[in-house]
Parts: sequence; structure tokens; C-alpha cells
Amino acid sequence: MKKTCRVEFLPFLSRRDYARGTNLLDALREIGLPLKSTCGGKGTCGECLVRIQKGKAASRASSRLPEDVRRRGYVLACQTEIETDLIVELPRFEEQSVRALVSSRFFEAHPDQTSGVFEISPAVRKLRLSLPAPSLADNSSDLRRVQRQIQKSSDLRCREAGHHVLRRLAAAVRKQEGQVTAVLSRSGSEWRLVDLQPFPPPQNIYGLACDLGTTTVVTALVDLEDGKILSTTSGLNQQLRCGEDVISRIDYARKPGRLLELQRLAARTVNSLLEKACREAGVSSADIHDVSLAANTTMTHLLLGLDPRTIREEPYIPTVNTVPAVRAVDLGLDLNPEALVHCAPAVGSYVGGDITAGLLATPILSAEDGTSLFIDAGTNGELVIGNRDWLAACACSAGPAFEGGGTKCGLPAIEGAIEAVTLRENGRLEYRVIGGGKPKGVCGSGLVDLLAELFVHGLIDRAGKLNESKAGKRFVRGEDGAGFLIEKDSRCYWGRDLVISEKDITNLIRTKGAVYSACAVLMKNIGLDLNRLDAVYIAGGFGEHLNIENAVRIGLLPDLERKRFRYLGNTSLTGAYLGLLSEKNRALVETIAAKMTYLELNAEPGYMNEYTGSLFFPHTDIGLFPTVKKILEP
Amino acid sequence: MKKTCRVEFLPFLSRRDYARGTNLLDALREIGLPLKSTCGGKGTCGECLVRIQKGKAASRASSRLPEDVRRRGYVLACQTEIETDLIVELPRFEEQSVRALVSSRFFEAHPDQTSGVFEISPAVRKLRLSLPAPSLADNSSDLRRVQRQIQKSSDLRCREAGHHVLRRLAAAVRKQEGQVTAVLSRSGSEWRLVDLQPFPPPQNIYGLACDLGTTTVVTALVDLEDGKILSTTSGLNQQLRCGEDVISRIDYARKPGRLLELQRLAARTVNSLLEKACREAGVSSADIHDVSLAANTTMTHLLLGLDPRTIREEPYIPTVNTVPAVRAVDLGLDLNPEALVHCAPAVGSYVGGDITAGLLATPILSAEDGTSLFIDAGTNGELVIGNRDWLAACACSAGPAFEGGGTKCGLPAIEGAIEAVTLRENGRLEYRVIGGGKPKGVCGSGLVDLLAELFVHGLIDRAGKLNESKAGKRFVRGEDGAGFLIEKDSRCYWGRDLVISEKDITNLIRTKGAVYSACAVLMKNIGLDLNRLDAVYIAGGFGEHLNIENAVRIGLLPDLERKRFRYLGNTSLTGAYLGLLSEKNRALVETIAAKMTYLELNAEPGYMNEYTGSLFFPHTDIGLFPTVKKILEP
Repeated sequence: MKKTCRVEFLPFLSRRDYARGTNLLDALREIGLPLKSTCGGKGTCGECLVRIQKGKAASRASSRLPEDVRRRGYVLACQTEIETDLIVELPRFEEQSVRALVSSRFFEAHPDQTSGVFEISPAVRKLRLSLPAPSLADNSSDLRRVQRQIQKSSDLRCREAGHHVLRRLAAAVRKQEGQVTAVLSRSGSEWRLVDLQPFPPPQNIYGLACDLGTTTVVTALVDLEDGKILSTTSGLNQQLRCGEDVISRIDYARKPGRLLELQRLAARTVNSLLEKACREAGVSSADIHDVSLAANTTMTHLLLGLDPRTIREEPYIPTVNTVPAVRAVDLGLDLNPEALVHCAPAVGSYVGGDITAGLLATPILSAEDGTSLFIDAGTNGELVIGNRDWLAACACSAGPAFEGGGTKCGLPAIEGAIEAVTLRENGRLEYRVIGGGKPKGVCGSGLVDLLAELFVHGLIDRAGKLNESKAGKRFVRGEDGAGFLIEKDSRCYWGRDLVISEKDITNLIRTKGAVYSACAVLMKNIGLDLNRLDAVYIAGGFGEHLNIENAVRIGLLPDLERKRFRYLGNTSLTGAYLGLLSEKNRALVETIAAKMTYLELNAEPGYMNEYTGSLFFPHTDIGLFPTVKKILEP
Repeated sequence: MKKTCRVEFLPFLSRRDYARGTNLLDALREIGLPLKSTCGGKGTCGECLVRIQKGKAASRASSRLPEDVRRRGYVLACQTEIETDLIVELPRFEEQSVRALVSSRFFEAHPDQTSGVFEISPAVRKLRLSLPAPSLADNSSDLRRVQRQIQKSSDLRCREAGHHVLRRLAAAVRKQEGQVTAVLSRSGSEWRLVDLQPFPPPQNIYGLACDLGTTTVVTALVDLEDGKILSTTSGLNQQLRCGEDVISRIDYARKPGRLLELQRLAARTVNSLLEKACREAGVSSADIHDVSLAANTTMTHLLLGLDPRTIREEPYIPTVNTVPAVRAVDLGLDLNPEALVHCAPAVGSYVGGDITAGLLATPILSAEDGTSLFIDAGTNGELVIGNRDWLAACACSAGPAFEGGGTKCGLPAIEGAIEAVTLRENGRLEYRVIGGGKPKGVCGSGLVDLLAELFVHGLIDRAGKLNESKAGKRFVRGEDGAGFLIEKDSRCYWGRDLVISEKDITNLIRTKGAVYSACAVLMKNIGLDLNRLDAVYIAGGFGEHLNIENAVRIGLLPDLERKRFRYLGNTSLTGAYLGLLSEKNRALVETIAAKMTYLELNAEPGYMNEYTGSLFFPHTDIGLFPTVKKILEP
């Protein structure tokens, strides 16, 4: 029998030899291919599903792998050992861009109303220089002549020069009779020469805004001269294979070598999005001179290669909140080697740079008066309440249920995901699929709709239990227990039936309950009645649109006048983008971080009660949701 | 016939397979072994001599390879192709440390008289911090707590932190109940956190002073707390195989990939000396936090990987004179990754940081009054005249003859080199060999003595021609023409006869003539009579001692009162060392560089005349050397 087996992975076309008996998940990790796995190889999360197209593999049975799925060649990679040459088909998540997370619709529509300003004053500048020819009479060095001209043509103090630009300096200043474009980057109170280009430069100067989320990562390639976004790309965080939420990533990082692995996966994720963005925009990555990054505290630590352990251990102290600027090259990012990465500052372990930067994309600090609430329901849920004078924040472990994680039917807002659902009176279920065609799963906004429709039509009760008789033919019972059949003829990885199970619903209740109860406790702590809120801004990975009415009906959002709500989409990316545009915005984020008080929910005595009370549709105390009560009891 | 041949190189014990027909010099370069070669593979310099101990190689004849030498198995590597498995013996230069170049004797004896001060105020500091334990009540990040304590216990502004120290921060601050030692390094007007060590730290903090010469490289490992030199190491610049002087290195760098090769060779040279220094002193290289480098402009460019091409093309403009601090890790130096390399500033293409730093080790700027001359006769000759108010400098292409290069009998001041010579009245030649035993060659101070003795005893005439009858049995005629037999029973690579040929003597005359004529032109240009010089300081690679009397007799130095001369040894290293000790010294070097006027000898109308006049012992115009005249015409 052969000792070495050749395994080919589709659709990546990677091919490699492994010893017979190699675990298939290990083989995938070794080759660096992306695959979700939450449980870390125990066979319990069921997410490392792959299909053996050709060849033989020894696979242990798993309760997470239904027999019919198994018959079609599917196995859990973590439970499978290579026996012969194989062709293995992987799910196509990572290839795809994540839709509708790209930018804040609100900012696009109202750039003048956000806390951050739309003003082009970036930390990178370019200057046209006309250098006098070197001569025996003036034997100043090349660098000195460049510095002199910078001083002449601007008021920028520039004494430092990047090592990489020095290496090209002699050649650059001798072309085109000394007509050059100097690129300067601010470093503290000084400017630093980071590039020399011909004049006129073949390209503008560019920056990269990046929202490095636990689940999804989005980048925007920005022209720093007019602020235009040239290209946005998005995809799943390649760290997903190491765990789905920040806690499992932190645990994953504990073993030797894994922090480095996570660091590289983060860099690789950004690099692949970056490469795509550059290709789309026709920009060379060497012309990207600044990076503005917004991420939660754990993601920031992992990208920087900092040990995240202390983030999850009491008293929950991160290594850094305000991160010194780091050279892109030191993080393995493929940009101009002198480019600096500016991370938005965190407030603490669970309120990170995604929130402080995200506030730039809300009107909270620019509103004339009143008090607003900001909810960012990503993989972690963060809430901020306040106005231009004060800010208070808390975080809750919402889980990634509304971003497509932690549930079997869930998907991020990618092509093939159901993004909106309506249940007609006649029992007909209508839905809209991103990109059209057969559905593969349901994204956050679709899940909110689905739950609300099932709930208000009585197909699920207030605890999330399915009503078999009301669901009728759509009631199914499978490996995961009772479920509601969304679509028989689907493209989901589990088979042809796309089902939301009671287990999935329980998970979603927990998530929405975590957000609502955090909101209630935060308000109580501030001593403010919910009705006193002038505005509620919602951000997160729900998708392009979020049906506020439905979000209230399931008890995710408080029952306030609907016009006070605004769904902002991805505020984190917009915040990163605004930081890139203007140093004024970066300064404002620093102020935001310094001003914000952090409330540790776990230390709040009333929190567990509030949380338990929220584990119903819409809440144990239906009096808190008068409009929902009215619908239920007409 | 075998297609692949295994070649073993002694004494390095490197072994490798090569295709039959591979050029032996290429094979050596490929494997990275050091071998001198000035002509770049043309077979004309005769320096890439190796011995085939075993095996067969096809070697072209060369006028540089005498038949008897050839018979003993010697070949020129560049003219040789591999035919069978080989054992090849290389010369042992690079293994050896270069003696007597280690430090300035003058500074050691008179630390209070030099321009630079002996004061411990380095650009790296350490601070003891007692960090309060993190708690839920104070959720500041680890970095913030460190920064707060730095502010409390010192007046140093420290907002930045190195990326490498951040990676270890969480672990470091949680050991020993928050008792840590912070290491800070100055960056502009701010300090930067570069390391965290336990308290008390297991070691002090250290710096490396380095004199990166064209031929020889010397490093001193310095304790930055008391200024003690813990270990000095020296060796040949591994770039020697790419050419002997700066011009040939610049030419070598023109082809693609070679600049990188030279950069790596420079870094490798420093790393190997560094490693030895650390081993000797029992210091971990990760505890070296600062580097002070003194080198000529070309060597500085090559270490930084900057294209040196413009240095040798009119109008001779280097990329940089004042070099921004560079991280050691960016240069491939194996130190603490946050360590900065500070290069002493150059004045121009041919007056570099070795001279500006070297002046720190002379009394020129601290003398109360008067005017002094500083001569650094390294591979390039540089001269500075001036005092605390003004400085003028020029450079001449002296060539490496007094450092052991460019002549057949010459050696650097290494073990086996003759360092002093006396010719007795009875014709007996007495000499002293470094390390004792049979001589391998003659170093700079030995050559000065030898020439002076041969000259005053009439064995060579004023043009350097040997007097056959006076030389008697010591007159020999070989491949290089007429020569004087120094020792029959030697260990030199050419055979048993150690000979100084007329060709060697001509080379030495050119070198001493270049130095003297530069001196004369510089004085004339300043409008100062030689006799008005209050002091003449001499530095260079001559060896441990230089016989001033003999140096005047051959016309290398002007004929002044002998007590005005002082041989300082290696001023460049001492200057680098002083820069490491105190930022005051670094500031003074900047002032020196800014103050110095540079005189381009090639643009001086009288220079060629002066030079031609100097090509005699001691000079065409013997009136300029009254004391020598007196000896010759008693």
C-alpha cells in the first residue's frame, strides 16, 4: 500500500503529498488553506465539512454529519484520515467577497452629519521638487538637496528619511533633470521622506482603510488626494479556521507557534484583499503609503503579534490600547515598505478600535444636543451611549449568529445568502437572495426577518419553539432536532434542504438577548430612561439592509419610535476611512477613546437577570414592547 | 567522466558539489568564502591564490604565478576550472584578527586631552520601574502603565514603543510583581521603549562601536553604564574579495545583485566580529541596544545598501552625508532588533564618518590655540587641518599599500607580519614579527622602516631603484623583476622567499607621495607654512607603532620637529566609541562635519606637480627635508 498520497484541493488547485494516515484538517492547515472550524478538531462543530470527490478516506462518524450528506461524499476534515490519493472539494466561502459590509450607507448619504469630517488632510503628502543639479561647487549630498527643497517648497520639517527610499535616492534624483515628487509621511511632529517618484508621478498616493473583523474583513483602497474610494474588497478572516470568536482565538493562541500562525493569517487575509483591491483599481501596492485599521482589541493584538491572553483573564488588561504606529513591512503586509499602520485606539479589552473609529461614522459627537445610543452587533456586541460631552460603553458576548456563524443555516452576507424574508398570509415564504439564484443560507438581516415573521405568525412561540401544526409541511425533524424548512431546493452545504433548526433559533435568541440586555443595563447604569434616547444607530454584519421593525419585534432593539433608529452598515470601515483622510479625524478618535468610560457587564449585579429576561421573543416582560404586544394581542 | 565534483575548502571545512568546469573563484564566491581579488577575475592581480591539495584542476598560466609556486600546487582561482573532486586550501587572512588597530593609544593615555569627552550619557538608558498590579479598577493597558511609571521616575518623554518589545510586554510586566527594567532609546527629541528586562536586570546595557574600514574592521563591545570596553575584535572586511579599495568596490557594485552582495558581506563581517566579542565578554547580542559606526563614505553606503556609483562620478555626490539612524535589523545585523545604528556623518564622498568621528579622538578641537594637522593614512588617505574654529580637509587615493594591500610582500598588521625593521651597519637585517616566528609578510610600520633603512643605507636610490652591488646576496630577480630578499625561510604564500620587489617599492612611493603632496597642497591652499603647524596627528593601519623618524626619512611625513608628531593608532574606532558613550560627542561630530570645508585635490591646479615631485625619497626637492639631507650628505 502506498505510503504517500497526493491530495488535490479544489477549488484552490493546491496539490501536495502527505503520509498515509494524515488527518485531513491538519493537512489543510499545513498547506494554509482556509476552512472554518470552531471546535478545534473535536468533530462537534461540524463546520470543517469537505467533499471527497475522488479517492478513499477513513472518516469517523459524527452526529454533526447526517447520513444522507455523508452518502454524497461529505466528511468532516477533522475526523478524516487520508488513505489514498484524493481530490477534496472545499467550501467556497473565502473566495467570495462579503457583500454589503463595504461601507456605511449613512455616511455616503450624509457625510456632513457624521462626527468625523470629510476633509482631505492625510498623514501622507506629496510635494513637487525641482532639484538643482549637483556640481563641484555644491557638494551637498543628494538627501540634503532634497531636504533643502522640501523646506523651500513647504513648511514641513523633514529631517528623517526611510531606509528604503535612501536606497533608491541616487537614481531617483538623477532622472528627469531633478524633477521629482517627494512623498512624506508624518511621524510625531516631524515628517519623514518615504518615497521619491518621478514628476509628474505616474500615480497618486494611496491609503488603505481596513476593518479587520473577527469574522469578516473589509478593505477600501483610497486616493489620498481626493478621498475617493477606488475599490473595496471583503472576505472572511482566514483566522476563522482557528476559532469563530475572539475567545476561541485567544485560547487557540496559547500553544507555541500559534500566535505567529494567527498573526500570519491576519496579514494574509489583508494581503489577499489588498491585492485584489489594487488589481481592480490599477494601483501598485508600493504606492500605498498609509494604513488606517479599525479592529477590536483582540484582532488588533493578533495582527500585531501581541499575546492576547490577558484580554480574557481577569482583570482583562490588553497589552496596548493606544497602539504606536507600526511599519507595514514589520507585520508582513505587502505595501510600500515605509508605510505605517495606524490602529484606532481601544478603550479596553472588549471595546476596541472598531468602536472608537466607528463612532466617527455616526452623528453622535456632532449632534447639537440629545443623547444617542450606538449598537455595533458584530461577532462581539458593543454599545456606546453618549453625546459630544460624555461617552459610556459596554460589551457583550453576542456571538456571531447575525454574521452567519454559530448557526447551521447562517451565512455572512455573501452571494447566495437570503437577505430578506416575508411570510405571506397564505403561508407562502418569499425571500430575496444576494446575487439571485438558489439560496445557500441566510445572512443576519434575513435571520432577523425570518425570526420576526415566524414569531408574529405564530410558527414559533415566545421561547423559540416551533409550532408543528402551524408550520405544516415545513416542519421537519433532522439530525439537529425540530426545524423549519426554508427551501427544499437549495445550494447549502448540508444537502438540498435549507432548514433553520430550533437549535439555531435558540442561538439567535441568545445573541439578540445579549444585545438587548446589555442595552438595558447600560441605560440603567447611566440612569437614563430608554425613551430619553434621541437616536439609536445600529451597525454590524447584518447585511446591506436591516428591517428595524422586525429587529424590534424579536426584541433585538428596544421598542422606540422607529424614526429614531438608523441602520448605518459598517461603521468600522467608514471610521478607518475617515482616519485615513484626515489627521483631524485621527485626533478625534484619540479623544473619543480617552473620553469613553467602560462598564464591565460581568461586574454589574443586575446583568444576569436582564439577560435571562431577554431570552424570549421579544422579552419576558412584554410590557417593554408595547407595539409588539399590540400585534400579538389585537 | 564525472559531471559533478565535490570540492572541499580548507581551512573552513566547507564542502559542496559543483558542475565540472565551474570556475574556482565563482565557486568560492557562491559559497561565500572570503578571498582577496583586486582585478575582478582577470588573472592580473594574482591575489586569489589558492593551493590544490588534492585533485585535478585546469588552470591557465598567468604572469602573476611563478613557475615554482605553480609547481607546489598553487593556482589563481579565477583562472582555474574544476575538473575532479578537489581539496583546496585557502589563505588564512580572514580567520585572524588584525592586531594593534584596536584602539587609540593616545586616547587611552590622555582621555582628557581629546576633542571628544569621556562622559557616560548614552542614547540608551535603563530605568527601574515598579508597576502597580492591573486591576478591574484601573483598566489601563500594560503599555500605559509602563509609560506612566517612566514619567513618574524620570523626566524622559516616552510615547513610542518598539514593536518587538510590545510583543513581549504582557509577559514581562506580569513577572516579579511588576518589578521591571525598562530600556529606552532616544529617537529625536523623544525616547522610545525598546526593551523590558527583569529587575535587577541579568546584564547591563551594551553598545557596539565599529570602525568599518575598507580593509580592516574593528569592533568594541562597550558597557554603556561605565563606558568600559569589554571586548575588542578585528578582522578583514569580507568585501575584500570584491576589490581592494573603494573605487574597485564601487565598480564591482555596478552589476545587478552585487550591491546586495556587498551589503551582506559588510553585515556578515560585523556580525562575525560581534559574535566573537559577545562570546568573549559573556554578553548576549540581544542586550546590545546601540551601534556607533565610523566608516568612510563608500563603506557607509555599502553597509546601508545605498548605490555608491555617484561617489566616483563627477561631481562626486554621495546619497547621504548625514545618515538617518537605521534599525540594526534592517541591515541584517544580529543585535537587539530595536537597536539603532548611528553612522558618523560624512563631509563628502572622500571625507567620511571615519574622519569626522576620528577627530573626536584627537586633541584638535580641544587645544587652547594653534593649528594641527590630522593625517589618516588608511586605504584612502585623508587629511584635516584646523583647530576649534575652522577645519579644512582633503582626500587622496593613497591606496592600501601601508595596510598590506597592493604590494606582494605586504600584509595587514596580523600575526606573522613584520612590524619593525632595522638594517645594521654590518648588513644584518633585523626585524620583529607580530606573534613571533617566521614572517609571512610586512605590515605598514615594517614597510616604512624597511624603505627608510634601505634608502639611508643606499640599497635603494631616491627613485626606489635597487642598487644591485650594495644589496649583494639579497638582490634577487624574479617574476616581478628586481627585488630585495627579506627572508629566505619565510611563511609567505608565494614560496619560501619573502621579497620586496622594485614594483612593490614603486607602489609604496606612490602611496607616500600621495599623502605628502596632499599635505603640501592643503597647507598651500590654506596659506599656511608647514612650520606653523603646532601638532601633527597620524592615524591609520600601519600597526601598533609607527617610527616617525623613518616616516619622515622616506618623505611620508613633513620634516618637522619630531616632538610635534603623535601616532594615534585607530582614531576611527575611538571616535565611534566616544559617540556611543555620550550624545554630547555625537553632537560634536555633527558640528565637526558641518564646520569642515572640503578641498577637492583633483580640482587644484598645483596638485599633479606636487604629486610628481613627491615620487622620490624623500622628495625631488630635498631642501624640504633638511634632516634627511643631513644624513645623506654628512
